[in-house]
Amino acid sequence: MNTILILGAGKSATFLIDYLAESCERKNRRLILADLNLDTVNHKLHGRRYTTGEQLDLEDGTRRKSLLSQANVVISMLPAAMHPMIARDCIELEKHFFSASYESDFLREMRPEIERKDLFFLNECGLDPGIDHMSAMKIIDDAKAKGEEILSFRSYCGGLLAPESEDNPWKYKFTWNPRNVVLAGQATARYIQTGELKYVPYHQLFRRTETISFRGLGDFDGYPNRDSLSYRTVYGLEDIPTMIRGTLRRAGYCKAWDVFVQLGMTDDSFQMKMPDDATLKQFLNAFLPFHSQLSVEEKLAEVIPELDFPTFEKLQWLGFFENRKLPITKGTPAQLLQAILEIDWKLQPEDKDMIVMKHLFEIQTTEGIKKVSSSLVSFGQDSVYTAMAKTVGLPLAIAVDLFLDGKIPLTGLHVPILPELYNPILAELEKWGIGFEETVTF
Amino acid sequence: MNTILILGAGKSATFLIDYLAESCERKNRRLILADLNLDTVNHKLHGRRYTTGEQLDLEDGTRRKSLLSQANVVISMLPAAMHPMIARDCIELEKHFFSASYESDFLREMRPEIERKDLFFLNECGLDPGIDHMSAMKIIDDAKAKGEEILSFRSYCGGLLAPESEDNPWKYKFTWNPRNVVLAGQATARYIQTGELKYVPYHQLFRRTETISFRGLGDFDGYPNRDSLSYRTVYGLEDIPTMIRGTLRRAGYCKAWDVFVQLGMTDDSFQMKMPDDATLKQFLNAFLPFHSQLSVEEKLAEVIPELDFPTFEKLQWLGFFENRKLPITKGTPAQLLQAILEIDWKLQPEDKDMIVMKHLFEIQTTEGIKKVSSSLVSFGQDSVYTAMAKTVGLPLAIAVDLFLDGKIPLTGLHVPILPELYNPILAELEKWGIGFEETVTF
Repeated sequence: MNTILILGAGKSATFLIDYLAESCERKNRRLILADLNLDTVNHKLHGRRYTTGEQLDLEDGTRRKSLLSQANVVISMLPAAMHPMIARDCIELEKHFFSASYESDFLREMRPEIERKDLFFLNECGLDPGIDHMSAMKIIDDAKAKGEEILSFRSYCGGLLAPESEDNPWKYKFTWNPRNVVLAGQATARYIQTGELKYVPYHQLFRRTETISFRGLGDFDGYPNRDSLSYRTVYGLEDIPTMIRGTLRRAGYCKAWDVFVQLGMTDDSFQMKMPDDATLKQFLNAFLPFHSQLSVEEKLAEVIPELDFPTFEKLQWLGFFENRKLPITKGTPAQLLQAILEIDWKLQPEDKDMIVMKHLFEIQTTEGIKKVSSSLVSFGQDSVYTAMAKTVGLPLAIAVDLFLDGKIPLTGLHVPILPELYNPILAELEKWGIGFEETVTF
Repeated sequence: MNTILILGAGKSATFLIDYLAESCERKNRRLILADLNLDTVNHKLHGRRYTTGEQLDLEDGTRRKSLLSQANVVISMLPAAMHPMIARDCIELEKHFFSASYESDFLREMRPEIERKDLFFLNECGLDPGIDHMSAMKIIDDAKAKGEEILSFRSYCGGLLAPESEDNPWKYKFTWNPRNVVLAGQATARYIQTGELKYVPYHQLFRRTETISFRGLGDFDGYPNRDSLSYRTVYGLEDIPTMIRGTLRRAGYCKAWDVFVQLGMTDDSFQMKMPDDATLKQFLNAFLPFHSQLSVEEKLAEVIPELDFPTFEKLQWLGFFENRKLPITKGTPAQLLQAILEIDWKLQPEDKDMIVMKHLFEIQTTEGIKKVSSSLVSFGQDSVYTAMAKTVGLPLAIAVDLFLDGKIPLTGLHVPILPELYNPILAELEKWGIGFEETVTF
């Protein structure tokens, strides 16, 4: 009897657990779900047959290894920092390993060991990274098979709100780790365009946006991700003249977020201490020049000459021009800002999220340059069954299920860029309503 | 017979060595000058009586300690990173220690040990830090003695070119460590103005300037230093409403330098690799958005809307709009930029440098608010006998000389903020032409 161990029962594991619990019941497999919080575990398992919930403190090595020993396959939904520990255990105990996190340098070092023991380690099998790799590689391999040349590949993804839940001027709430959202982009972005290498520092990032539109949904801002260059090798496109990967926000978000960036309010490098009764306005004022006559609003307009009404309105909605008290007064500017946003951008139980992803290809064919646009849109059902949890969890669940069915004839360390992986996974995702809409123009 | 050991015979040690060599001859003291490069040592000592040159590799602990053992007083002109090692030796061997570098946390931890052994450790006794502390404390102590209250203290300093050597549009050449100049300001600046704490991120720093003028020299840009707040405690001005310390550049420099900052060309956090035959124009273009029609100049004007002719001219003078080849093509953007500037901003043998420092006080007196402006201007003689070497080296040399004369009745760990230090040192500096011009207005 095959046993699957899922480590971590957090928000993004909902669909993963449901999918595998259902398949284990049908296929006579056992599912163990382990988390520090046993209540969460039991709540997510709904007492289904063939499932066991376990309380696990990861620091307890004996208990951790004892749980791993019972499994054939281990799925880590833990924060990426935990993966080296789990991966090491899996290699030692000869267990297959699956995650939606980036393949780490540590895992690359362990590659020979993974291969020697005939294990299967699959990473980057969620949404982004995950579905992006699979859907892109299908188009790339298809073009290469026809002898066509990929001239340009731009790919954007965003975890946002479904339009019906866009009830604030930012059209944004936290559907993902708030700290990552506040610190997003704090490294120089790199990409290549028409053969020119391009570098965008953090303080230009939210100005260097591109408008990306989705049918029926309207416009989004796309800003470049940290490193688009390394994907040239991953995708086998070493000589591609244009390769950009980016993140999507609703149109107008980036211009307003850029105000925080320009003022230094997303800085995470030093501690500040505001008075105990300080307001959001005082917090904002700490990043503006002193002036004996001008108001905070007037000084802001001087420092940010491009401040327009839609941007002003977004800041105003957060309470920056009122005497609203700061939720916390000590910490880095980024921590103070995050505390403010965690109140205003909190996902409500009835809120629905949305995942949008778009690949834009330019491909040289015998008939001329073909433009391929491939779009994914997925809506959440509520704040538990989110589109994020669905698009992150299902690819991983499907991969594990296929693997245990004997339908993935691979061993070693992988990300889902091979047809043996992306073809069956994409086909199954399609059945769950996660499919791409493709348009081709010349 | 007292023996002084100077570690490091670099550029900024010229005046220090000359002053002490002369005083040793008069006062029957011995001077040992040690450096990795014996030629430099011999060249600087001119074979004077009472002096000995020694070749020293600092890694050679036995030799280092043997040299230290011969001295009563050790002066370190080494990079600040070496100071913990030397200071530890001095404590172990019970030698007095002098430097122009910042008092480190390590030294503060050693304070009880320094006091227990009755040693005298003096740091921050150069120009900035050094002369700034001494001249400021004289005014502060004077005001306090009269029962006056300091309302505002702004202090600016710059190491620049003498007007007669300002033969490029930047009016700047490297009179100090080029790497420090390129990376200057890469941390959020903090100061207090009229009771409001202010934070300025790096990408706003060169825009948040103040114009500071010197009689007969014209205007300078002052931009805030990293941390002005900690000096409130050092100077005993804990409750001062306004305290800003800053750096001076020639008027217009900051606006042009800001172009590099805005584009990300001073970034030192990642490696870039330009083609072997890449030009400065291509290097600049890597930080500009792609455009199929616009020239580099046109794109630059779009990204930097405030680009004016004086700024454009400065970039043009460096060769950014020509097909001039990059001196190095691999490294961080900051390293590539530094390599370009090291060619164009090289101090020529006939070039003269200049030190400018200005303190601006507002002091509440019984007759109203008194404005005190205190300015120092010092010119170099040539590229060896620089104003920088003079203003950094002489305060230290004078302090050592006074100490050996028995005229500094102190032990323990110090920076020159006590009248026992600043009064005699400032008096002697005055004789060497390093004096402040003070104007008082109401």
